[in-house]
Amino acid sequence: MIIDGHSHVTLPVEAHIKAMDKSGVDKTVLFSTSFHPEVAEDAQGVKEAMYFLNDLLAGKKGSMVEIREKANAELVMAIEQHPSRYIGFGGVPAGLDLETTKQFIHDNVKKHNLAGMGEFTFGTGQVHLMENVFKSTLEFNNMPIWIHAFFPLNMQDIKAIAELAKQYPRTPVILGHLGGSNWLDTLALAKEIPNLYLDTSAYYSTFVLGIVINELPQKCIFGVDRPFGDIQLSLDALRSVAKTPDVAKAVLGENMAKLLKL
Amino acid sequence: MIIDGHSHVTLPVEAHIKAMDKSGVDKTVLFSTSFHPEVAEDAQGVKEAMYFLNDLLAGKKGSMVEIREKANAELVMAIEQHPSRYIGFGGVPAGLDLETTKQFIHDNVKKHNLAGMGEFTFGTGQVHLMENVFKSTLEFNNMPIWIHAFFPLNMQDIKAIAELAKQYPRTPVILGHLGGSNWLDTLALAKEIPNLYLDTSAYYSTFVLGIVINELPQKCIFGVDRPFGDIQLSLDALRSVAKTPDVAKAVLGENMAKLLKL
Repeated sequence: MIIDGHSHVTLPVEAHIKAMDKSGVDKTVLFSTSFHPEVAEDAQGVKEAMYFLNDLLAGKKGSMVEIREKANAELVMAIEQHPSRYIGFGGVPAGLDLETTKQFIHDNVKKHNLAGMGEFTFGTGQVHLMENVFKSTLEFNNMPIWIHAFFPLNMQDIKAIAELAKQYPRTPVILGHLGGSNWLDTLALAKEIPNLYLDTSAYYSTFVLGIVINELPQKCIFGVDRPFGDIQLSLDALRSVAKTPDVAKAVLGENMAKLLKL
Repeated sequence: MIIDGHSHVTLPVEAHIKAMDKSGVDKTVLFSTSFHPEVAEDAQGVKEAMYFLNDLLAGKKGSMVEIREKANAELVMAIEQHPSRYIGFGGVPAGLDLETTKQFIHDNVKKHNLAGMGEFTFGTGQVHLMENVFKSTLEFNNMPIWIHAFFPLNMQDIKAIAELAKQYPRTPVILGHLGGSNWLDTLALAKEIPNLYLDTSAYYSTFVLGIVINELPQKCIFGVDRPFGDIQLSLDALRSVAKTPDVAKAVLGENMAKLLKL
């Protein structure tokens, strides 16, 4: 079974399903989004979408709770259209008090049978905002947590995430994008900490991608990060650098299937 | 003519020429290197090579002048073996006084008929060290300059490079890796400044790669960044996102051929 372990809702949903069919992807772990650069009519539209995202992440677009709720509703709608093809991870605002966090997870994630939480994206020095999310997983069946770990996170931030993973050893933590330019030290952490996994999306070097997946095939999870990545190009790259068919099989689906008990 | 506009000397050289042949790449603009992760026997070897590079860039491995000279000698040797396939860009230490810079360029670049200078790689806040290199180009036929513009450079650094490009309007400046995560503002600078170009290597999103090359096809230059990138996967990605054959043709060779007067 081939699983894209990380893509966002892209519109129209049918075009995504068609692209999965064409490339032979059985299931996609789907994440919500608060902007849709893929529907922009031209480069100017994409720019506006990107600047909107920047403002959003900088807190200039109002309540993150409302934004997450709206994005989750869109996610749930997409999954309801294709329940056999999509598995959802729900967006949860970080930095809320424990009770509010639990309530949000209950209403937005648990109630809709989503399988995990993420993508968490924050600025450098903000990892402590994740504390209550981690604490909450104890009550939600140790639901996996997916954290963006490329720019602007630095190695200190990634180490702080690793510390949380150690404190909550039954909660799987997926670090996005191989840790970005900190891939070498991130790889060492994923080797050491049993519940820490690496997502392969947004690789900027296929040489690095090859080193990491062949060194730690049981802890790497294939991701496309649509709309930013392309399904077929990502599959081609992964298959091209995997040293054995078993490495490719593990990364392209088996690891995620095991993690989500599919 | 298909030109890989940015790759480093990789060993054995014959394997590179074979890979170029296989993918239909006519010429490669070749850059020197001070380390060879591609010949590491295993992941441990790659790690040692990467840590060596980190130490090198942090100034812990002694004189950059000697290191550059040694790397340039290896570059020149590779070009002498395949003069019809390789065009060289010579490594030049930044931060030297004007006379020493000129002498270095004369002895290491001009004397060997190399076509440009780079890859310049430095930490954030260090762009001013390039001043004498830019000044020197006036005496060396406005030789193009190639600057790494991904992590750790930030937007301030990229703006500082853009200012230098404006001050030396006859010197072509190629910004590596689309400006990394600052691609959107970097694209705007490349649009505005006639002698500022964008190298496509180390893209981390094929969606972004598509936006940039289709928005500014005459200023983008295909690069593989071997050993970190793979020739065939890079070609496939570029062709897949180019909206027209003309865009692909410009980026895959025409622009670099014009810039180097091939």
